[in-house]
Amino acid sequence: MVSKKDIKLISSLKQKKFRFLNKSFVVEGKKSISEFLDSKFELIKLFSIDCSFFADVNRQVEVNIEELKKISFFNSPDDHLAIFKIPNQKSINETRLIVALESIRDPGNLGTIIRTCEWFGVNDIICSNDSVDCFNPKVVQSAMGSLSRISINYLDLNSYLKNTKLNLTGMTLNGDSLYTNKSSFEKGILIFGNEANGISDKLLSVLNQNLTIPRSINSDFPESLNLSISVGIVLGEIKRKI
Amino acid sequence: MVSKKDIKLISSLKQKKFRFLNKSFVVEGKKSISEFLDSKFELIKLFSIDCSFFADVNRQVEVNIEELKKISFFNSPDDHLAIFKIPNQKSINETRLIVALESIRDPGNLGTIIRTCEWFGVNDIICSNDSVDCFNPKVVQSAMGSLSRISINYLDLNSYLKNTKLNLTGMTLNGDSLYTNKSSFEKGILIFGNEANGISDKLLSVLNQNLTIPRSINSDFPESLNLSISVGIVLGEIKRKI
Repeated sequence: MVSKKDIKLISSLKQKKFRFLNKSFVVEGKKSISEFLDSKFELIKLFSIDCSFFADVNRQVEVNIEELKKISFFNSPDDHLAIFKIPNQKSINETRLIVALESIRDPGNLGTIIRTCEWFGVNDIICSNDSVDCFNPKVVQSAMGSLSRISINYLDLNSYLKNTKLNLTGMTLNGDSLYTNKSSFEKGILIFGNEANGISDKLLSVLNQNLTIPRSINSDFPESLNLSISVGIVLGEIKRKI
Repeated sequence: MVSKKDIKLISSLKQKKFRFLNKSFVVEGKKSISEFLDSKFELIKLFSIDCSFFADVNRQVEVNIEELKKISFFNSPDDHLAIFKIPNQKSINETRLIVALESIRDPGNLGTIIRTCEWFGVNDIICSNDSVDCFNPKVVQSAMGSLSRISINYLDLNSYLKNTKLNLTGMTLNGDSLYTNKSSFEKGILIFGNEANGISDKLLSVLNQNLTIPRSINSDFPESLNLSISVGIVLGEIKRKI
């Protein structure tokens, strides 16, 4: 059974403020929940239509479909909903490629970027402090389990990039062609800017190089690519080289 | 002023059934509306906070912000909302690369794919009849004006692919590597399957080749890439070759 307290807590976890106060976030669907359990995230409570599916999991509550509908963030809830503890930030592995995101706003974009990073073997994402929270329910949903395995750090991006000795490559609309430039960008930090405004002038000034995904020569449109598409194309280009 | 009839009509255009009955769809925001006007889409009616912005456009109605909120599909409406006529399907240009989508469901994915196709100079998208409608408001929004310039045809995809002599390349999870295969896929038709199930067995049987975007060797996760990301990576790979 779901208590009123559970309903109130889960509903509050839609908001970043309450996620951080409670150090908790919500994962829905058995596949994603399995992946978070496998990745040693600390389970706080699991609500299941059928407790036999996660038979060896304690802290589990059997619920009926009406109760699940009350707590789910989805219109058509999956059979399970879990509350997990938000882990402490991990240290950043600077020996491998890092993806940096400045002021990313769209949770669907961040989720897709997390999934795409995992596909291409990138383990570290760093986000400016004003970026969308990676435990936002829409990020959790679109990252599809990859969030349980990728390390994401929120930090003062400007200060971090200013003080690192790593190679800094920014994706902009007026850099050298991603395909023909000869410089290396397989190591260091790849920086992507905000969906509407790109990389800020402040960050641009600390980059070692700017690269661009070239557009078809026959058109002035569209003005830009979707942010997560850009991340996919650049990581694909790195993957083909190594 | 917005009439009750206008409100009822616009609200109905959220649904595919009524878009097709009325042969009309909604575009919001001055940038997108400008692009549809420039692309010679037939304007049915334009609702503007400030009529001077589209000063030479007839069939324009001045509205206040409260009226605009009533008709807009967005929580924070832009200053303009237009109803355009759905054009007739155009003929497919088989001399250039075509992107085919089977049973695509997510409107955000389709919009992003339209925008990405335009970036890389692909002018023709063909969709199986059961795919999400390209005049769905979320597609219009995420395609960001590119929908006004890309030709999209809905058809019996199975029958079309069976009867064409064009080279058919499908993106699957177990094909040859996109990066190392030597066969050509810059011309003909590139086929992408449904978000959850990929390309159906029926369509797989008519393809000339299957290609895969290789995953990092260190993991079995994630199971797949987001559909629109895959389209971006494959079109980027073609772009780098030509």
